[in-house]
Amino acid sequence: MFRITMSPRIRMTPFHDSTVAAGMTDITVYNKMVLPTSYGDLKAEYDRLIEGVAMWDVSVERQVQLEGPDAHELAQALTARDLTNLKEGQGKYVAMCDHDGRLLNDPVLMKLSGNRYWFSLADNDMLLWCKAIAAERGLEVAVTEPDVSPLAVQGPKAEDLIAELFGEHIRDLKYFWFTETDLDGIPLVLCRSGWSKQGGFELFLQDGSRGDELWAKIADAGAKYDIGPGAPNHVERVESGLLSWGGDNTPDSNPLECGMQRFVNVDCEPDYIGKAALQQVMASGGPERLFVGLNIDSDVANAWPLPGRTPITLDGQQVGTLAAVVYSHRLERTIGLGQVKRTVVEADATVEVQGPNGTQTATIQQLPFI
Amino acid sequence: MFRITMSPRIRMTPFHDSTVAAGMTDITVYNKMVLPTSYGDLKAEYDRLIEGVAMWDVSVERQVQLEGPDAHELAQALTARDLTNLKEGQGKYVAMCDHDGRLLNDPVLMKLSGNRYWFSLADNDMLLWCKAIAAERGLEVAVTEPDVSPLAVQGPKAEDLIAELFGEHIRDLKYFWFTETDLDGIPLVLCRSGWSKQGGFELFLQDGSRGDELWAKIADAGAKYDIGPGAPNHVERVESGLLSWGGDNTPDSNPLECGMQRFVNVDCEPDYIGKAALQQVMASGGPERLFVGLNIDSDVANAWPLPGRTPITLDGQQVGTLAAVVYSHRLERTIGLGQVKRTVVEADATVEVQGPNGTQTATIQQLPFI
Repeated sequence: MFRITMSPRIRMTPFHDSTVAAGMTDITVYNKMVLPTSYGDLKAEYDRLIEGVAMWDVSVERQVQLEGPDAHELAQALTARDLTNLKEGQGKYVAMCDHDGRLLNDPVLMKLSGNRYWFSLADNDMLLWCKAIAAERGLEVAVTEPDVSPLAVQGPKAEDLIAELFGEHIRDLKYFWFTETDLDGIPLVLCRSGWSKQGGFELFLQDGSRGDELWAKIADAGAKYDIGPGAPNHVERVESGLLSWGGDNTPDSNPLECGMQRFVNVDCEPDYIGKAALQQVMASGGPERLFVGLNIDSDVANAWPLPGRTPITLDGQQVGTLAAVVYSHRLERTIGLGQVKRTVVEADATVEVQGPNGTQTATIQQLPFI
Repeated sequence: MFRITMSPRIRMTPFHDSTVAAGMTDITVYNKMVLPTSYGDLKAEYDRLIEGVAMWDVSVERQVQLEGPDAHELAQALTARDLTNLKEGQGKYVAMCDHDGRLLNDPVLMKLSGNRYWFSLADNDMLLWCKAIAAERGLEVAVTEPDVSPLAVQGPKAEDLIAELFGEHIRDLKYFWFTETDLDGIPLVLCRSGWSKQGGFELFLQDGSRGDELWAKIADAGAKYDIGPGAPNHVERVESGLLSWGGDNTPDSNPLECGMQRFVNVDCEPDYIGKAALQQVMASGGPERLFVGLNIDSDVANAWPLPGRTPITLDGQQVGTLAAVVYSHRLERTIGLGQVKRTVVEADATVEVQGPNGTQTATIQQLPFI
C-alpha cells in the first residue's frame, strides 16, 4: 500500500475533521475530493451496514445544478431517459451519454423545482460537459457546482434513526424521492437513496461550514442504534450488483452495456444526446456486451487484489473484462463483476479469469447476486 | 498520512511496475491515474533534480488529441492564444477558458501536423469539454485520448543523456519543440519540456505496453549520470513559480489571475471561447487578483502541512489565498505561492498568513523566486 500525498488540488470534505476523529485509515480520491474508504476494520463495517446502521461521508458525490428557465430542456438533452413525468421532489437514476452514445456518467437526477435540477454524480467532471452544452446551445440556465455534500445513513436501522430525527412522515418517502428540510437549522435535502441495497437515506448538506456539526448530531442520535462510521462498501455493492462507473465499465461502453437497460428510454421524445447512437445499437440487435455477475471457482477465501480491469477469456480468447472480485460474506464464496460479450452470456458459457494462483473458471449470472 | 485504496477506477501507468520496483512510497491521483510523488527521500530527489538528472513517471499528463480537417479550428476555439503562427513540431503553453473566461486548464498544446494536435493536460477531464464543443459545433474532428504517456527526464544532466540516446541534433530543439522518433523501436514524441525549470525533456511514449522497457533503457543509459527516480518536485516548482492548476488557483480564476498574462492574447483574432469575458476584465482595469510569491517570516524550517488553500489577510480582512508553502533549500527560507488582490500587490503591502504557530507576516514578490 502507498501513502497518499495531500494537496489543495484534492479537496477536503465538510466532514473531514470528524472522519479523522472517527479513525479514518484509508481513502481514495473521487471527483478530486477525499472519499474515506475504511476506518480500519472492513468486516465490522460490512456487518454494520447489513445488520445495523452506518454513516458515510460521500461528499464526493458532487452535484451539478441547472437553474433557470431552460433547466428542464438542458436536463432532458443530457439524459437518456424520459423526464416528462419527473415530479418535483423526485429523483431518477439516469444515463448521461456523449454524442456517440457512450456512458459519461450514471447520476441520480433530482428535480428540486421546475427550473432547478441536480445531477448527483459519479467520478467525472460533468460540470465541464454540462456547461459546454448549455453555452453552445445558448440556453438560459446557470450551470454550477453548489455547496452540497451528501452524508449517507445506510442499513436496516437507518429508517428508525432518520424518523426519530426528522419525523415519522419520512417513512412514506419513496425510493429516490426527497424533501428540503433542516436539522436544528442545518439546511439539508433528505433523500431516500444511497449506494447500497440495505436501505437508507442521504442527507445533502447545503452548508459546507456545518459538516462536523451535522456529523455529531447523527452520531449522537445514532448511538442507541450502535451507529458507526463506514464507507461505500465494496463487498456489499458487488453482492448487490451496483455499477461503479469508471471502474466496472470500459470507457467506450454505452449504458446498455452497463446494466442500465431498465433506466434508458432509447426512443425517448424529446431528443437527448446520444439517441441516434443508442437507436443504432438496438437496430443492430442490442448491446455487444452485458454487465454481469461471475461466480468464481476459487479457493482463495479473500478477494485478490484487482487494481485494474483484467481479461475474461473463453478458450483463450478475450470475451470480457473483470472489474471487481470479492469474497461474499453472506454467500460464502468468491464473486465478481464484469462486462462479457452478449453471445457468451446467452450461451451460458463457462469462462476463465486470472487469479493469484493462475487460471480459474467462472460461471455467469444475472445481477444482483443477493 | 492515509493509505490509498486502489481500484480499477484509478488507472495504473505504463511504468507502474518499474516505479514500484524503484521503491515508490507515495502517490497521488491525477486525471484518475496514479502519479508517483516520492520514493522515500524528498531531499535526495530535490538534489538530483537541481544538480543531476531524474526520471519521472508523469503519465498523468494525459493528452487530448484533435484529429481531422477541423482540428485547427477547434484548437483555436479552445485556446486563449493566437495559434496562427504555431508550427508543426512546436508546442505552446496555453490557457483554455470557459465561456465566462475562467481557466479550465493550462496545457501545452502541441501541433503534430496541420490536422493533428495534442493538449497535454493538467488535472481535469478536458476530453469532455473538447468533445462537447466539437460535437455541438458540428466540426469534422475526432476528439480522443490517445495511448500516450509522458516520461520526464529532468535536470542539468538531462541533455547529455538524451543526446547520447537520440543524437546530438536534439541539443538544437527549442523549448516546447518536439520531434516524432523512437528508441530502439519504441515509438515516442521527444519534446524539450517538463514541469521544472532545471531543463530537460519529456518522452511521450506512444505504446502503453512498452513502458517498463522504456523505463529500463533510460535507467540503464542514465546510470553513468547517476540518474534516479523522482517526481514533479513541490519545492522546486514553488521556487520556480510554476502554476499547479486546480491547487494554486480558485475555481473562478481567469488566466490573468494565474500568472498567465504572457501566454494569453486577449484580443486574438480569430475568436476563442472566453474572449468577450477576458476583454471585459481588461476593459475594467485588469485582473482583480495576481498569482504571486510570498516570503514568509517563519521560524519553521520545514513547510507546514497545507492540505487546502488558506486565507491571506491584511488587517484581518481576506485579500487572497495561500496555496503552497515550502522551505526552499536554495534560498534557505520559507516561501509560498498564492493569489492576492492586485491592489494589495501594487501597494507592496505586508500581509498575514496562518502558520502552525499562529499568524505570521509575509511580503509579496514577483515570480519566480529563482
